[in-house]
Amino acid sequence: MSTGRISLTSDNASGAHPEVVEALVRANEGHCASYGEDPHTEEALRLVRSHFGERAEACFVFNGTGANVVALRGLIRGHEAVLCAESSHLWQDECGAPERFLGAKIVPISTPEGKLAPAYLEPLLDWRGAVHHAQPAALSITQATEWGTVYQPSEIRALVDFAREHGLRIHMDGARLANAAAHLDLSLAELTSDLGIDALSFGGTKNGLLFGEAVVFPDPDRIPDRARFLGFHRKQATQLASKMRFLSAQIGALLSDDLWLRSARRANAMARRLEQGIAGLPGLEIVRPVEANALFVAVPETSLERLREHAHFHVWDPAGPIVRWMTSFDTQPEEIDRFVERVRAIACG
Amino acid sequence: MSTGRISLTSDNASGAHPEVVEALVRANEGHCASYGEDPHTEEALRLVRSHFGERAEACFVFNGTGANVVALRGLIRGHEAVLCAESSHLWQDECGAPERFLGAKIVPISTPEGKLAPAYLEPLLDWRGAVHHAQPAALSITQATEWGTVYQPSEIRALVDFAREHGLRIHMDGARLANAAAHLDLSLAELTSDLGIDALSFGGTKNGLLFGEAVVFPDPDRIPDRARFLGFHRKQATQLASKMRFLSAQIGALLSDDLWLRSARRANAMARRLEQGIAGLPGLEIVRPVEANALFVAVPETSLERLREHAHFHVWDPAGPIVRWMTSFDTQPEEIDRFVERVRAIACG
Amino acid sequence: MSTGRISLTSDNASGAHPEVVEALVRANEGHCASYGEDPHTEEALRLVRSHFGERAEACFVFNGTGANVVALRGLIRGHEAVLCAESSHLWQDECGAPERFLGAKIVPISTPEGKLAPAYLEPLLDWRGAVHHAQPAALSITQATEWGTVYQPSEIRALVDFAREHGLRIHMDGARLANAAAHLDLSLAELTSDLGIDALSFGGTKNGLLFGEAVVFPDPDRIPDRARFLGFHRKQATQLASKMRFLSAQIGALLSDDLWLRSARRANAMARRLEQGIAGLPGLEIVRPVEANALFVAVPETSLERLREHAHFHVWDPAGPIVRWMTSFDTQPEEIDRFVERVRAIACG
Amino acid sequence: MSTGRISLTSDNASGAHPEVVEALVRANEGHCASYGEDPHTEEALRLVRSHFGERAEACFVFNGTGANVVALRGLIRGHEAVLCAESSHLWQDECGAPERFLGAKIVPISTPEGKLAPAYLEPLLDWRGAVHHAQPAALSITQATEWGTVYQPSEIRALVDFAREHGLRIHMDGARLANAAAHLDLSLAELTSDLGIDALSFGGTKNGLLFGEAVVFPDPDRIPDRARFLGFHRKQATQLASKMRFLSAQIGALLSDDLWLRSARRANAMARRLEQGIAGLPGLEIVRPVEANALFVAVPETSLERLREHAHFHVWDPAGPIVRWMTSFDTQPEEIDRFVERVRAIACG
Repeated sequence: MSTGRISLTSDNASGAHPEVVEALVRANEGHCASYGEDPHTEEALRLVRSHFGERAEACFVFNGTGANVVALRGLIRGHEAVLCAESSHLWQDECGAPERFLGAKIVPISTPEGKLAPAYLEPLLDWRGAVHHAQPAALSITQATEWGTVYQPSEIRALVDFAREHGLRIHMDGARLANAAAHLDLSLAELTSDLGIDALSFGGTKNGLLFGEAVVFPDPDRIPDRARFLGFHRKQATQLASKMRFLSAQIGALLSDDLWLRSARRANAMARRLEQGIAGLPGLEIVRPVEANALFVAVPETSLERLREHAHFHVWDPAGPIVRWMTSFDTQPEEIDRFVERVRAIACG
Repeated sequence: MSTGRISLTSDNASGAHPEVVEALVRANEGHCASYGEDPHTEEALRLVRSHFGERAEACFVFNGTGANVVALRGLIRGHEAVLCAESSHLWQDECGAPERFLGAKIVPISTPEGKLAPAYLEPLLDWRGAVHHAQPAALSITQATEWGTVYQPSEIRALVDFAREHGLRIHMDGARLANAAAHLDLSLAELTSDLGIDALSFGGTKNGLLFGEAVVFPDPDRIPDRARFLGFHRKQATQLASKMRFLSAQIGALLSDDLWLRSARRANAMARRLEQGIAGLPGLEIVRPVEANALFVAVPETSLERLREHAHFHVWDPAGPIVRWMTSFDTQPEEIDRFVERVRAIACG
Repeated sequence: MSTGRISLTSDNASGAHPEVVEALVRANEGHCASYGEDPHTEEALRLVRSHFGERAEACFVFNGTGANVVALRGLIRGHEAVLCAESSHLWQDECGAPERFLGAKIVPISTPEGKLAPAYLEPLLDWRGAVHHAQPAALSITQATEWGTVYQPSEIRALVDFAREHGLRIHMDGARLANAAAHLDLSLAELTSDLGIDALSFGGTKNGLLFGEAVVFPDPDRIPDRARFLGFHRKQATQLASKMRFLSAQIGALLSDDLWLRSARRANAMARRLEQGIAGLPGLEIVRPVEANALFVAVPETSLERLREHAHFHVWDPAGPIVRWMTSFDTQPEEIDRFVERVRAIACG
Repeated sequence: MSTGRISLTSDNASGAHPEVVEALVRANEGHCASYGEDPHTEEALRLVRSHFGERAEACFVFNGTGANVVALRGLIRGHEAVLCAESSHLWQDECGAPERFLGAKIVPISTPEGKLAPAYLEPLLDWRGAVHHAQPAALSITQATEWGTVYQPSEIRALVDFAREHGLRIHMDGARLANAAAHLDLSLAELTSDLGIDALSFGGTKNGLLFGEAVVFPDPDRIPDRARFLGFHRKQATQLASKMRFLSAQIGALLSDDLWLRSARRANAMARRLEQGIAGLPGLEIVRPVEANALFVAVPETSLERLREHAHFHVWDPAGPIVRWMTSFDTQPEEIDRFVERVRAIACG
């Protein structure tokens, strides 16, 4: 991207963290067994268990859509349905991959701020029991949400309680789980395993990997009929890497020396810095709480072009318009400060 | 893998070629657009076209199963069928991914040496026209085959002619196309585009990448109704990388300075060196022509354990037994020579 | 069902019309070609064309879900999406059959009275063009709707215009098309072919057949790339009857001597008679316009049990509660009158 | 079909048995609950249990492809595979419906006379355990086979033993089970439940129904994780009839007063009569044992046209040619005798 403009398009516009690249280069040593029978994978799985609990079963996949479909395949059958927020990646951004791979129904639920809550789910329970309806069998929640908001542990616990009460399973799309954990100052387990999440897509790509996500079942005994097929589900989903070590080494690096946390903290801090810099400027409105690494800001239509001279970003909703400014593990404070200065000039000029 | 034993398990037991790693590290520079709108992808696509023809349409995916399902989705509809060799990866080694993603029938055909030929396909043409039968619509051939054999250009041309005559399309699983081209001393185009292949899975992983394959339609005008959906097919197949530059940079490196050819030549040369070293040894029989980078060798059951002391390899067929010894871009002549010596000792001892 | 209670549960609680049974018995004469190559099918197809236009292509299937999936398979590809009302059978009542058979996304849209309109669809157009989103490619509207309401021709025309403008195709789930046509006093073509509907599920079962629906493409030239696969789509959907004459004879009877219209008129008239009989009763509220053969009535919770003594019916929404009273081709005026008397007694007593 | 020519095309070229039509007409009495909650269905299920065992769980579907996909969905998961004879309907004649609906692999096995046996299956067991391969999980056998041959109970028992030993489940496509039972003079249970069959497609259409097959799990406790989803599987497969009584009444009639057996015996007897009539004629060769209701006969190419003057039939294999002559529940002895006379004249003339 052209110099001078800050990149606020997405956390996947960034490259890879140097520690990740180093780990990758280190892993490129001689021959080793393919498909995950290598020491790098063993070590990465050990690290997964050290973060998500000793009982956790996990595997590594290439990308977020892959993680979601493999994780959900472990939770539902073809005549069942997954309930998710209408704003979720699962509903919006996966081009029908879940429907096609699961052969099942995905049900979007309109929610404020992208968060599910029991009250929104209850009407769907009417579908249960009758053969005419796809049977709601799993919830999928996104942490942090696509709106940059973060579920409080109590909110997740309420959903887990609801799920348990009604025999539903619960999946977390944690493409930005690190950002949520950093925001809440909680460990990864405290936001997942400890709360009773059944299946997790743990994101790496948006947090400084080249590629790579983990599918984690914190307590596979809760899904005994399906967790044991994890390897087959991954393979049938086209998500099995032959040179697995190169996924494992990245995920190993992410889970070592708190790299996941350092990177997420930096991204979050840059978002807050930007929020603080533009708070209260005339004509600008921050329309969602800034809790992770994204700002959603209503800006005057007339400013769009000038803002674009100083930053790359997405217009999230042309009506408004509302723009998304998203920071990354490698966003620099100086970049933020310079951009804030420009925004101030545009807003106040 | 433990020192001292040569790794002949698979070409995916090797790591990444240093030039590939360098390219990867070089690509990790600042932010750039995701999902393929970056200069690394533009450059890699340019290189693809320079090798496969200016009209070629292509995209990059993570792995071979992904490449195959995306390529075939561009050739067939759900009520149609793909005809392939029973020994092919497509039939044997993809855990039902093609059936599930295509929602269509894959039809295995028993052939000697893993090669299709018109005579084997003709009986299936009886299925055409009647709604009871999945309609044969595409052939998929593997070059080099799973048996390490290589289609001659004339053999491919006969299949293309047959396909054209009967309105079939033709896909090549080129996971080891480079090895076939090196063996035949032909360019990539001479083995694909020039022969009239409709869709190609061009392999990178087995030839020195960390991950990465290309789906190539050499002449998208021949499949106008479907080639234009390539991007959607890739996405729905869970094969779209957000940080695409890291696939593109690798494929760019592979297609630069003849890296693909140098690597394949090395692998093939090592297989030939091994073949020459063991030819005629008592009790050993090389059961398939050695044309690419694999040897299939019938060995005495009683030698298996001792052979394993000196090499990692797969037993391909326990009846026999037949072992597969597969070389790689980084196999060393000294390793081969040392192994040959051991085999001789075992065979003649 | 027990004597004395009127059956208002559904129009599929009724049996078959005597003229349909007669036709079936007549068709049971000797041997004839199977799978639709018989004279009964030829005649029924002729009648379909006489009602829907000479260019119409059609086939017969067993049931409504079958008709919908076969019709939609003729309109969309796997990476595309169908937009429908949240209240539609397609979304609510098909247990994921569309998602599974189409391998594509179904998108529910919340609408009042079960009717789509361009304004509700426009936001979804934002999905177009980007590979992340399933591509909206077809609308599916239900005529009459699940709420017993009927689209005016002008409303359909507006949707067709919208569809054409945006390159979408348009499907009509006409499980109760006859009731809508009877209500509007229009021919079947005036409500479908003449308005530009691309694909139609034309219902027979709810209008006096034992089983049987027709999939009709009024103008197959508008979907040339797919209409020609109709027979294969039906077969792959498990909807091909071997003894096709027994579907064809029924549909032939339905389209002969205006049986479809006579039956629908009777059902509609009985619903209006019930509406008029209970209009204005204290505590009862008819919550949707009565345009076809169903009444949706809010009743006092305390009356439910007493109402059940006199009629079979579904509680549509336990909150309210709202009940559905649905008439059929064979509902008798005397039954209605007797039930009205009972309702009056309950409401006023 | 034109008078004078005997219909030997297929048992589905026949119509419905008069007792079936009577039952259908009797069932058309007033309103009753839809989707199977009616007394006709209750009675038919009682009859199913009286024939297949008291523990049997069953449901009724429209056609044979529907029965097969619903039955198999109760036996396998998406990453698994069904092994069947290459000549089976499941492999040849279902246009990819099993692959699409199951999202799984169907594996054809070349066998003489259309019968599986353990020896043919053993090589596929090599696939088990490795994620690369779809996991063989069920056998599907056809009784009687597409070649008109019949498995002896001992042959089935050997397959069941093999299946149990290797953790496989076993499905029987019994589209012509009645013909096999009539041939062997065994009850339906003796050929299915008593032998340990896990899931059965019990055919009605080819034995005198208009439409209708039953899916039967003789001992659902053996497949506890899946049998309970039978109703959902049927619905998602588009095979749920709303006016279920009209399927149930037919199946009820078939299972009453030995109608299934009387009809099958007649069809078989007519095939044997034809066999005896043409045995030993010069130039004709009966190429498969005549055990059910079909003859496969190699005839001189030059006779084909003259044979067609006297009968409708399929040319099964143009090389030969081999024709199929198939009898039905309503084939008349006089028709057979007249045809035999013609064949003799052609053969000996």
